[in-house]
Amino acid sequence: MPDAIDDLKQRLRQFADERHWDQFHSPKNLAMALIVEAAELVEHFQWITQEDSRALSPEKKAEVEAELADIMIYLVRIADKLDVDLYNAALAKLEQNAEKYPPELVKGKSKKYSEY
Amino acid sequence: MPDAIDDLKQRLRQFADERHWDQFHSPKNLAMALIVEAAELVEHFQWITQEDSRALSPEKKAEVEAELADIMIYLVRIADKLDVDLYNAALAKLEQNAEKYPPELVKGKSKKYSEY
Amino acid sequence: MPDAIDDLKQRLRQFADERHWDQFHSPKNLAMALIVEAAELVEHFQWITQEDSRALSPEKKAEVEAELADIMIYLVRIADKLDVDLYNAALAKLEQNAEKYPPELVKGKSKKYSEY
Amino acid sequence: MPDAIDDLKQRLRQFADERHWDQFHSPKNLAMALIVEAAELVEHFQWITQEDSRALSPEKKAEVEAELADIMIYLVRIADKLDVDLYNAALAKLEQNAEKYPPELVKGKSKKYSEY
Repeated sequence: MPDAIDDLKQRLRQFADERHWDQFHSPKNLAMALIVEAAELVEHFQWITQEDSRALSPEKKAEVEAELADIMIYLVRIADKLDVDLYNAALAKLEQNAEKYPPELVKGKSKKYSEY
Repeated sequence: MPDAIDDLKQRLRQFADERHWDQFHSPKNLAMALIVEAAELVEHFQWITQEDSRALSPEKKAEVEAELADIMIYLVRIADKLDVDLYNAALAKLEQNAEKYPPELVKGKSKKYSEY
Repeated sequence: MPDAIDDLKQRLRQFADERHWDQFHSPKNLAMALIVEAAELVEHFQWITQEDSRALSPEKKAEVEAELADIMIYLVRIADKLDVDLYNAALAKLEQNAEKYPPELVKGKSKKYSEY
Repeated sequence: MPDAIDDLKQRLRQFADERHWDQFHSPKNLAMALIVEAAELVEHFQWITQEDSRALSPEKKAEVEAELADIMIYLVRIADKLDVDLYNAALAKLEQNAEKYPPELVKGKSKKYSEY
């Protein structure tokens, strides 16, 4: 079974190839498309409370799911164009974060979250 | 072998648990964190040409890779909090896009890309 | 006395001219720069509650003020490059919004805010 | 004649008051609304070249103008809620930028723009 990320990468390549869209898929443009999708996600949450954002209705949840899908699609696509392995990049970042934020120092009200 | 996305999901749960950070990880907050990371990606490309964005130096590529990792981390985390399967959501969106943009209609200069 | 927006526009033109930066100031690039600054604003609020965002410390308020300044700068600059009058454009939009959201229909818990 | 920014500020206060929307206008929420509008601006430019972004059709220009208006509206509104004077904040930032980027050092191909 191919890995999920790799499978999406291959499908997105084919999708762009069949449409001759590779010419539009510069990293510059794909970064713009990605942030536009991220904003469509943010839009769902802009006027509601944190509490309500944890308890979306089924209709809203379906809409939010579609936005997450769009972000995933552009993220996998730009990673492919830049030859980045998303899984290993995320693992490496997690290791850095683990050193940067030791549990015993940041537990509960961390510096990161409490500096305001 | 666990799927890459699922493996990240589990690691991020543990990471937040160990730091008691779950309280900060409302979907509203995570959507904000995600778009902030998306903007850090955009920042790398804001003043360069599309052509240059396709040929980053190794130093810049490493920086961009770290931003993609951050986006992946928050994307997997918010999907987990909302109980969304990113892979299947992306597949469903790809199917919709395939119907919306038939290759024979959008090839090369698609409506989507040429309306300007 | 020149209008504040017009004064900023003139100063930003001179600033770019003196540095030969006009070549980088395409609307595409300026839109990217603007959203990057907007994200730096969002970053200040991503982990705090709405209540806390209404009561920033003087130090945080100064940082947020600098982000608002950056957004204003790029907003005035892109409006100038596109020959848009920000004040009149905002007035026109306000009129549209007034028709779209009649007070008697949207008061308190508006459709806009309560659909979630 | 009142200053343009101050006039918008007053109109936006009245607009929110009449709709009892002040409760939704925390700086956290307004920052989210602002970046969502910034992304709607970015969306207009995501697939086009820098050159084409400098020469929009009248139809596209009208759409872009409406997005700039939305950004201005939320920018003036959040500045009001945080008691920030946008004009003076922008002037202060411009002075800092003038020191940070002396014309003789950054002219044409500045460090800022050429580090990639």
